[in-house]
Parts: sequence; C-alpha cells; structure tokens
Amino acid sequence: MKILVDAMGSDCHPQPEVEGAVQAAREYGVEIVLVGNKDVVEPELAKHDLSGLAVSLVHASQIIEMKEHPAAAVKSKKDASMVVGMKMLKQGQVDAFVSAGNSGGVLASGLFYLGRIKGVKRPALSSVFPTRKGFCFLLDLGANTDCKPEYLLQFAIMGSVYAERVLGITNPRVAIVSNGEEEGKGNMLVQETYPLLKASGLNFVGNAEGKDVPAGLADVIVTDGFTGNVIVKLSEGVASFLLGILKEEIKSRPLAALGAIMAKPAFEQVRKRLDYREYGGGPLLGVDGVVIVAHGRSDSLAIKNAIRVAKQAVEGGTLNAIRDDIARSLTRSAKE
Amino acid sequence: MKILVDAMGSDCHPQPEVEGAVQAAREYGVEIVLVGNKDVVEPELAKHDLSGLAVSLVHASQIIEMKEHPAAAVKSKKDASMVVGMKMLKQGQVDAFVSAGNSGGVLASGLFYLGRIKGVKRPALSSVFPTRKGFCFLLDLGANTDCKPEYLLQFAIMGSVYAERVLGITNPRVAIVSNGEEEGKGNMLVQETYPLLKASGLNFVGNAEGKDVPAGLADVIVTDGFTGNVIVKLSEGVASFLLGILKEEIKSRPLAALGAIMAKPAFEQVRKRLDYREYGGGPLLGVDGVVIVAHGRSDSLAIKNAIRVAKQAVEGGTLNAIRDDIARSLTRSAKE
Repeated sequence: MKILVDAMGSDCHPQPEVEGAVQAAREYGVEIVLVGNKDVVEPELAKHDLSGLAVSLVHASQIIEMKEHPAAAVKSKKDASMVVGMKMLKQGQVDAFVSAGNSGGVLASGLFYLGRIKGVKRPALSSVFPTRKGFCFLLDLGANTDCKPEYLLQFAIMGSVYAERVLGITNPRVAIVSNGEEEGKGNMLVQETYPLLKASGLNFVGNAEGKDVPAGLADVIVTDGFTGNVIVKLSEGVASFLLGILKEEIKSRPLAALGAIMAKPAFEQVRKRLDYREYGGGPLLGVDGVVIVAHGRSDSLAIKNAIRVAKQAVEGGTLNAIRDDIARSLTRSAKE
Repeated sequence: MKILVDAMGSDCHPQPEVEGAVQAAREYGVEIVLVGNKDVVEPELAKHDLSGLAVSLVHASQIIEMKEHPAAAVKSKKDASMVVGMKMLKQGQVDAFVSAGNSGGVLASGLFYLGRIKGVKRPALSSVFPTRKGFCFLLDLGANTDCKPEYLLQFAIMGSVYAERVLGITNPRVAIVSNGEEEGKGNMLVQETYPLLKASGLNFVGNAEGKDVPAGLADVIVTDGFTGNVIVKLSEGVASFLLGILKEEIKSRPLAALGAIMAKPAFEQVRKRLDYREYGGGPLLGVDGVVIVAHGRSDSLAIKNAIRVAKQAVEGGTLNAIRDDIARSLTRSAKE
C-alpha cells in the first residue's frame, strides 16, 4: 500500500510530516510518498535512517498557507503540495492522501480534483472525539455551514461505514445533535432530518443534547458544519479553561501544589485520553478517494497515527462501502 | 420591592424556594410573595422563623411539570403557580417574578400573559456563563431554535443593557458565535447578522469561535437558541466528563489519591467558580416584565441568588432601558 503525505501541511512542516512518515513506514510497513518542496524536505529526510524503508519524495514548489482563502489558493497554486497530492491520488498513483494543511484547502482541492462519490451531495469533515465510554465519530465539522436534511442523512450513512470499517464498531449507534432529547425537539433542520434517519435502516438512537456528546451516548454523531465546528472548538476551550483554572488554584496553595505533584500521573493519563494526536486525523468523507485531514498542530506522533488511519480506511474498503450504501439509500428514497 | 417566587418550580420544590426566599428576605431586605399550593408550602414555611420578614403566600392549586408540553400546559392550567405568577406580575402586584420551573413554560406564560416589550420580535432565554476572565452573558439559550438576523441584533441590544445594568460591565463587548474568527465566516444567519451588529452602535468585537466563549473574549455573546442550548449543555458535559475521568484516574493510584486529598481545596474552589448556583438565574429578556429563570436543579442558594438578580434587574431599570434601546434601534433601521 502506498500512502501519500503532504509534507508542507502542519504548522511546523516539514519536520513532523517527515518524522511521522518515517516512523509509519517502519511500524506499519507501508510505502510512503512525501510531496513537498525538495529544498526543505530533503534535508529533513537526511536526518533519518531510511534503510529498508520505502520512503520517496515528489517535488511540489508551492504551499497553501493556513491563512489563505482555500478555493482561490487551490485554483491559483497549481504546484501546491496539496494540489499535486490530490492529482496523484486521482490518477491512482497512491492509495490514500494525508494532509495537516488548511482544511478548507483540502476540501476544495479534494472536491476539485477527486470529485464526489457518485450520489454524495456534500463531503464532510470529521473527527474522532473522546468520550466517557471511549470515543465517538463526529461530522460535519465545518465543510458545510448550512445543511439540508439529505446532507445530514448522508453524513450518517458515511459515518456509520467509517465507524464500522475503520473504528471497528459493529452496528454503530447514530444520533443527531439537538437541543432536547425527545423526538420533535430541534431546529427546523433537525426536525426534518429526524424522520429520514429513523427510516434509514441505520441504528438511529435519536437526538443527542450537548451533554450527551462527551457522555458517549452514540458512536456516530451528525450535525451541520457550523454546530460541529462550535462543538469541537468549545470542547477544547472548556477543557483548557478547566485545566487552566485548576492549575491556578493549585499553584496558589503550597500543600495543594505538593498534592498535585503526587497526582501528576493521573493528570498525565487524562491528558493522554484527551489527546487528539492519538486519533491522528479524520477522513474527508464523500470525496472519491481516501483523504485524511490531520490537525494543523500535528506533531510526528499525530502524523504517524493519521497514516495508520489512512491505511485502515484503505484496508477497510470504506470508499466502496460508502458508494454501495449511498446508492442503496438513493434507491430507497426514489421508491418512496 | 416585592419579588414573587414560584414555589413549585424546582425539581425539589417547594423546599429550595421557601428556604431561598426566606434567606433573600433577610439578606436583601426585599418583600417576598411565594406562589404555590398552600398545602405543601405552608408546612415548609412553618419550619422557618419569619419574624421581622415580609414573606407571604398566594395559593395556586396547579403545577406545570418539567415533562409537560409548555404551551399546552400554560393554556390548560389556569391555576398553575407559573400562570398565577405571570398574571400578578402583569397586574403590577409585584416587581419581578422568579421561577425554577419548566423554562418553556416560563417562556410561554411570559409571552401569553406579559407580552413582549414594544418592538421586540422574540424574547430570549439567557444565562451568565463562567469564563477565564470572570463571566460572560450568553443568549439565546433555547427560546428560538431558528432565528432571523434581526432577532440576534435585538438579543445583542438586550444583552448589552443587562450586562451594563445588572452585571455592572461598562460598554460590554458583544460577539456572535461563529465557526471562524474572520468577518465573512459563519453560516448564512451569522453572515447576515454581522453587518447589523457592526452598524448597531454596540461595542461589537466580531465573531467568537467555540473556544473563545470560555476564554472570555466577550461580555455578551449572542447566538441562535439551538446553538446556545448546545453550548450550555456541552460545556456542562465536557466539565463533568473531565472531572469524572480525572477522578477515575486518581482513584486507581494510591499516591495520586493522597495527592488529590491534599489538592482538595483547589478543586473545591474550581467547583465554586463553575457553580451555576452563584449566578442564580438568567433573565427572560424581551417580555414586558422582569422574569428570572432559575435552573431546575436549583437549591436554596440558587433561589436566593436568583432573587438577588431579580432585585438588581428591577433596580437597574432594565425594562425601560431595553424599551429605549430597542426603539432607538428600530428608528435607526427605519431611516436606512
């Protein structure tokens, strides 16, 4: 299996990409192709012992920056690492593509060069999210700020395939984010999506309130990209706020500070359970290719894990499974 | 000043209401009228020493339960404590009304019996929300799941008045929840509301991402009731998730457990900073009367503080200030 890694994506590129790629090649036995500016990637590669590993480099002279307007940048920078990468994936030169770059850019270049899986209305950004019971899979995280009910239905279908094939969850429970548990609660979008999910044949468990997301009520949680984005960023914000004020309060008390040192391994373990790097990245679901979007702040561990996720998505046959399930869903709704 | 308290609202009514009311009468020197079923409230009142306090009781035979459909219950139960309370407020027999009951019921009975302040399109549920820098004021929390730009503009106007007059924040910074910081980010609602806020004369500081809410980026944060509800419940959920897994990890390590005992005062202080009871309740803004909605889980401390908030809202002249600012805003937009 050949996995392509955007070497110019993360905030600290190309160090995390190169190191993560080398580690992944060694650990998972996959072939890695890095794409990026050889003037900066080659010196980074030279720091590693590549003997016995299949790691190669494809040159791309441009970068899509985090602050750029995604669609415009993708259009104008034909030799950007992300663009070159999407073209190679489209041509079948590689099996999957991992990028920690501008997620809007990944979305735009994915849509433009790969196109959508037949029948898919909109692709979705997604991520694994830690919960009390392990994790859930949340989508959309911002690809579509305004959604229609049929988009959310398709997110649920694609998310279920991914949860089953990559995350190893049998018959995943699907929920939709709402402002109340009972059927009938929600904004217009949720109220209109609810019956579609109920009739979908998915393991739909109903509405999930905000508190139900970290509680682990469901395995796959769908929402529009606006709300999904708020959920992910708010969760990060609340966690950092809580740990921050806890630190403040502990520091101001000598005995508490000593106690905190003794409790440190417990804190470390909590941090690990919340660490996005363990999950590596989330797929851009709905485009016609396996694309994994890693966090902009990714370090080598995160990149390595994103490559693992890409490998699992290819091995799990997610693309074909999504193709089949979307087609089945469209046939069903055409009959009604 | 005479403050009316719904004795039948909270999950454990009427104990918290009666105790909180008696404490408030003593501490704040306000006159309290309780409204509720005398068969249960009188025995509760008998437990307290009321000498020197102005605490009275108005009988109401019915209750609007938490699980009832708000509008239907308000319509059919003419002798519900909440309904009797709203009528008394409308007739000017009291200056403010505090209820920890079904918030949809408070909204429905408020709309039905008090009506809206002239020019206000929709009332909003609101709350004070702890942040890194103290607190912010968030609205709407669920009264309006689908909003129009002009509703959000009015929420911002009403929220600013409240922040200034009750929370004591001069020239409060106003932000709107969005999925990106830059102008132009957001769903259609946010994109259409942005220019209205910019032109409003309020101290508008732009978009607030999820992480910016607990970070304390703004004093007044507006959003639609769907997103606001998700924000409040998700924050509770993430906090409980974090403290829960921290407890788990600490318990599994004897040394860490000892450390945690030593750090306990710091944890207690954090809990206190997050405690909704300190804030008492949030106003139902936009109806033509001072109505404070307390949490269903309120204990006597929460009720006492909700009464304090009601007193501050009356003293601050919030109703008249909202009336003036809404009228001014309508004149301005009519001129454009």
